[in-house]
Amino acid sequence: MDDIITLSHGAGGKHTQQLIEEVFVKAFESPFLTRDDAAVFDIKGGRVAMTTDAFVVSPPFFSGGDIGKLSICGTVNDLACMGARPLYLTCSFIIEEGFKTEDLKKIAFSMADTAKESGVHIVAGDTKVTAKGQCDGIFITTSGIGSIEGARLSGSFAQDGDAIIVTGDIGRHGCAILLSRDNYGISADISSDCAPLWGLTSEMLAVSDKLHVIRDATRGGVGTVLYEIAHQSGVCIELTQEALPVDDNVKGVCGLLGLEPLYMACEGRLVVFVSQNDAQAVLNAAKGHKYGKNAAIIGRVTSEQPGSVIVNTSIGGRRLLAQPSGELLPRIC
Amino acid sequence: MDDIITLSHGAGGKHTQQLIEEVFVKAFESPFLTRDDAAVFDIKGGRVAMTTDAFVVSPPFFSGGDIGKLSICGTVNDLACMGARPLYLTCSFIIEEGFKTEDLKKIAFSMADTAKESGVHIVAGDTKVTAKGQCDGIFITTSGIGSIEGARLSGSFAQDGDAIIVTGDIGRHGCAILLSRDNYGISADISSDCAPLWGLTSEMLAVSDKLHVIRDATRGGVGTVLYEIAHQSGVCIELTQEALPVDDNVKGVCGLLGLEPLYMACEGRLVVFVSQNDAQAVLNAAKGHKYGKNAAIIGRVTSEQPGSVIVNTSIGGRRLLAQPSGELLPRIC
Repeated sequence: MDDIITLSHGAGGKHTQQLIEEVFVKAFESPFLTRDDAAVFDIKGGRVAMTTDAFVVSPPFFSGGDIGKLSICGTVNDLACMGARPLYLTCSFIIEEGFKTEDLKKIAFSMADTAKESGVHIVAGDTKVTAKGQCDGIFITTSGIGSIEGARLSGSFAQDGDAIIVTGDIGRHGCAILLSRDNYGISADISSDCAPLWGLTSEMLAVSDKLHVIRDATRGGVGTVLYEIAHQSGVCIELTQEALPVDDNVKGVCGLLGLEPLYMACEGRLVVFVSQNDAQAVLNAAKGHKYGKNAAIIGRVTSEQPGSVIVNTSIGGRRLLAQPSGELLPRIC
Repeated sequence: MDDIITLSHGAGGKHTQQLIEEVFVKAFESPFLTRDDAAVFDIKGGRVAMTTDAFVVSPPFFSGGDIGKLSICGTVNDLACMGARPLYLTCSFIIEEGFKTEDLKKIAFSMADTAKESGVHIVAGDTKVTAKGQCDGIFITTSGIGSIEGARLSGSFAQDGDAIIVTGDIGRHGCAILLSRDNYGISADISSDCAPLWGLTSEMLAVSDKLHVIRDATRGGVGTVLYEIAHQSGVCIELTQEALPVDDNVKGVCGLLGLEPLYMACEGRLVVFVSQNDAQAVLNAAKGHKYGKNAAIIGRVTSEQPGSVIVNTSIGGRRLLAQPSGELLPRIC
C-alpha cells in the first residue's frame, strides 16, 4: 500500500479496507476482528469493569515505548486498578494525512505485542484520517472491559492505618517524554516505565484480601493520585521522603528543571493501599514480579488532616505537599 | 469555570476535576461515573457485541445534529446492526485549547439526550487537551457493549433471494455536512438523518427471525455498504433505481455537484437483508417507527454476478454501480 496515510484511507471505501487488511489485521491477528460493525463474543455473567482513555502523546515514539504500547497499557492498567482481569479491548485511530505507513505499522505491532503480554484481545477498531494540520500525527483511543473476580477496590476505600506501596521508581515516563522533546538541551539515560500491569496486580491480589486501593500514577504522577485518594477517602496521607524510589537520573533532571518527581507521570507504576498487616506480603509479591522489582512502602494513612498529603523529609521536617495545579507538561500520554 | 478549555483541563489535576464535575457529571448524571479508573457494573452472561468509533466531523454543529449526538448514534447503531441491545458506552474527548466551554456543554448534553433515548448508560470517559493547532476543535471516540438476545447477523449472511430494505431516504447526512461547510454557495433545506436506531432495529427483529444482515450506511453511504455485503456474502445485489428513497433537496444538491446519492453518508439509515417471505412484515415494522417512516424495499439478492451491485434504471436499463473509491468528503463523521 501507499507509503503515507491519505484522506482516502479514512473514507470507509477500498483504501480503508486495504489499510485494515495490510496493517491492523496483520498486526492484531484476532478471530474477533470481522468486517462487521461490532465484535461478538461470549461473556461470563458477573461483575465487569469498563474504561476508556485517549492517547495524544508527543512524540509518538519515545525511549521505552511508543503511543501504541502506551495506549494498551493505559487501558489494561485502568482495568487492573479495579481488580479486573482485562479481557477485550477496542482501539480507534485518528491519523493526520501524510503520517508514515511504516510508523503506523510499528505502532500497530507494538499494540499487538502489549496486548498479547496482557492476555487481552483487540476485538474492534476504527480509523479516521484528517487533513494535514487538523491533528498532530496520530491519536489513539482504547477502551476495554475486564472481569472482577476478587475484592472491590476504589479510591474511596483507603483506611486509617493503611500502608502505601508504590510498585517502582517514580517519574520515569514524564522525564522520558520531556527529554525526547529535546527542548532543554539535557540528555540523560531515562526510559519510560510504560508497562502492562495486570500480571503484577494479580500477584498482589493473590496474597491479600485487604487491598483497598490500587491506582496507576499516570498524568499528574504519584502526588496527584495521592491527593485524589486523600479526598475521595477523606483521609490524610503521610509520606516518608527517603522511602520514595526515584532513579538518580530522574532526580538529576528534576533537580535541574525544578520539577517535583512526585508530580512526574508514570505509566507503569501502581500506588497500592493495603492493611498494615498485609503490607509486607504485598510488597514481597510486587518485588517478585518483573514490573515491581523496586517496589517500596512509601507512607501510611492517618486521620490527622483529612484531604492532605504530608511529606516527612529526610532531615526530620514535615511539609504539606503542594497541591497539583495547572499543566506540568502537555500531551504526556 | 473558564469560558474556554485550556491545557490545564487536560492535565489530570484540579482543573480536569472541575471540567468533569461541571460539564460531564452534570450532563451524564450516571451512578456509574465514579472518580475511579473504570466503571464497575454487573452483566448477565451470554453473547455480547463490542465496538468503537472515532468522530472528527467538521463542523461539530450541523443541521440536524452535532458531534455529540453523532458520537452516541454511531456506536449505538453499530451495536444495533449486530442485533445487540446497547447497554454501556464510554466516551473520550480530545479537545483543542481554546474550544468554548459553552459548546462543550452543548455537546455533552446532546450526548446525554441521545444516550437516554437509546436506553444506554455512559459509564466512563476521558479528556485530553492539545495545544492550539494540534487538533481541530473537538474529536470524540465512543465505545460500547450490548447484549445479543436474538439471531446472529453479519454482512456475510446475505442469501440469494433476500429482499433489501433501506429504512429511510438516503444521503441526508452527507448533504447536510457539505452544505454546512458553505463551500459551494448552495443553500437547501436538508438536515442530517442522524438518529439512534436500536428502537427501530428491535421492532424489525421482533417480527422476523429471517433477518440476515443489518448495516448502517455511514461513511461511503448505501452504495459502499452494498458493495461490502456483496463481497462478504459472495452475492450479486440488484437495485431498482426508482425505489430508492431520495429527498428532492438531496437530489437537487447531488445533481448540481455531480454526486451519487448512493455514496452520500447517512447516519440514521439501516440497510436490511431479509428473506423475501418476511420482507413486507419487516418493512411494515420499520414504517411504524418514527425513524423508519420512509422505509422502502430497494432491491434483491441474486447469484448472477457475485460481488457486484447492479442498478436497474427507471428507463429499463441496467448499469453496474461504479465501485466506491477515494475520498468523497473528508471528516463526514
